[in-house]
Amino acid sequence: MQIAILLYDRFTALDAVGPYEILSRIPGAEVVFTAARPGPVRTDMNSLALTADAALSDLAAPDVLLVPGGPGTADLLADLPTLDWLRRVDETSTWTTSVCSGSLLLAAAGLLAGRRATSHWICLEHLSALGAVPAAERVVIDGKYATAAGVSAGIDLALNLTGRMAGDDIAEAIQLVTEYDPQPPYNAGSTATAPPALVAALRASDLVVDTA
Amino acid sequence: MQIAILLYDRFTALDAVGPYEILSRIPGAEVVFTAARPGPVRTDMNSLALTADAALSDLAAPDVLLVPGGPGTADLLADLPTLDWLRRVDETSTWTTSVCSGSLLLAAAGLLAGRRATSHWICLEHLSALGAVPAAERVVIDGKYATAAGVSAGIDLALNLTGRMAGDDIAEAIQLVTEYDPQPPYNAGSTATAPPALVAALRASDLVVDTA
Repeated sequence: MQIAILLYDRFTALDAVGPYEILSRIPGAEVVFTAARPGPVRTDMNSLALTADAALSDLAAPDVLLVPGGPGTADLLADLPTLDWLRRVDETSTWTTSVCSGSLLLAAAGLLAGRRATSHWICLEHLSALGAVPAAERVVIDGKYATAAGVSAGIDLALNLTGRMAGDDIAEAIQLVTEYDPQPPYNAGSTATAPPALVAALRASDLVVDTA
Repeated sequence: MQIAILLYDRFTALDAVGPYEILSRIPGAEVVFTAARPGPVRTDMNSLALTADAALSDLAAPDVLLVPGGPGTADLLADLPTLDWLRRVDETSTWTTSVCSGSLLLAAAGLLAGRRATSHWICLEHLSALGAVPAAERVVIDGKYATAAGVSAGIDLALNLTGRMAGDDIAEAIQLVTEYDPQPPYNAGSTATAPPALVAALRASDLVVDTA
């Protein structure tokens, strides 16, 4: 089973690495990081680069596609080579998936037309304009399309997918190996629980543009 | 504020990238990935490389040191250049921290003598032989030494540190931006909640060696 994770300038690191840490541990899984050009690709915070080992054209027909989000998403919403590649891979994929604003790319490629999907809370409503049906949930599965909310939600997405692809026992084993027993020291991880003033400030800040 | 994250062959990606995603968003923080030699460093699963932008000798006195874990830890427990570097950086650091089996490296360098510390559940007891006091907790803070349990626990560690270094408001803002509102689809993330047969099987498997 080949799992392709797309990299592009200014993606968000955890969007890609959270799912990677889970999915790469499925027995028989081969994860390939891919980008327009092989080599190091810088994240949105600029202080980290992940290596793309394959060019997009190197991958014939990955079984699973995962598109992370990040501010760089905005640069690709009208990028024909990227959108064409997404459409081509989707023709034969078993699962087409995204984390955070990565769902905007899937939608821009026309792959989420009429489908329920999620995204980072700050850009969730943008899905409507791209033909998808926004759902404010952490993980949304509609047919073979699985989308996750912002950044850290990719871990929950990947465990969901692991259960469906490899069975609950494997998913539980991977959860235990990665000791995924979250204990956040604050309760501000969603707009429903964060201080309302904080939500409003983030919505109004430059961060809105950067995150979408 | 400079934050140094150590990379080495066969580290675990999420150990490093979980904290990076949080800490790099602290206003004024500069994160630097560092390794014995600059360039790409492969993770334990081999299908991903992160770029070390600096050699160990390039960093004069980072304020925060973070040591991820992974199977590669075992290769460094007696590596004098690495242990000497950890001791040197610790002389002036504000925080000396680790995720997963990274605490074994700190302990091997003599930095956790008599201190409470945690690690991945599968290698927690190894801390005793290295002079530390094992504590089966997700995040342990003893003086300026902050250690996290396995892999995903680095996210909780980093939010804890962010609150202490930059204040609760900044930590909550970063939690909301990274939408860290975990919803694991299984309840197998700790030895207390996972099926006992699974815990026993992992303890008995080659994974024990690989994870420690």
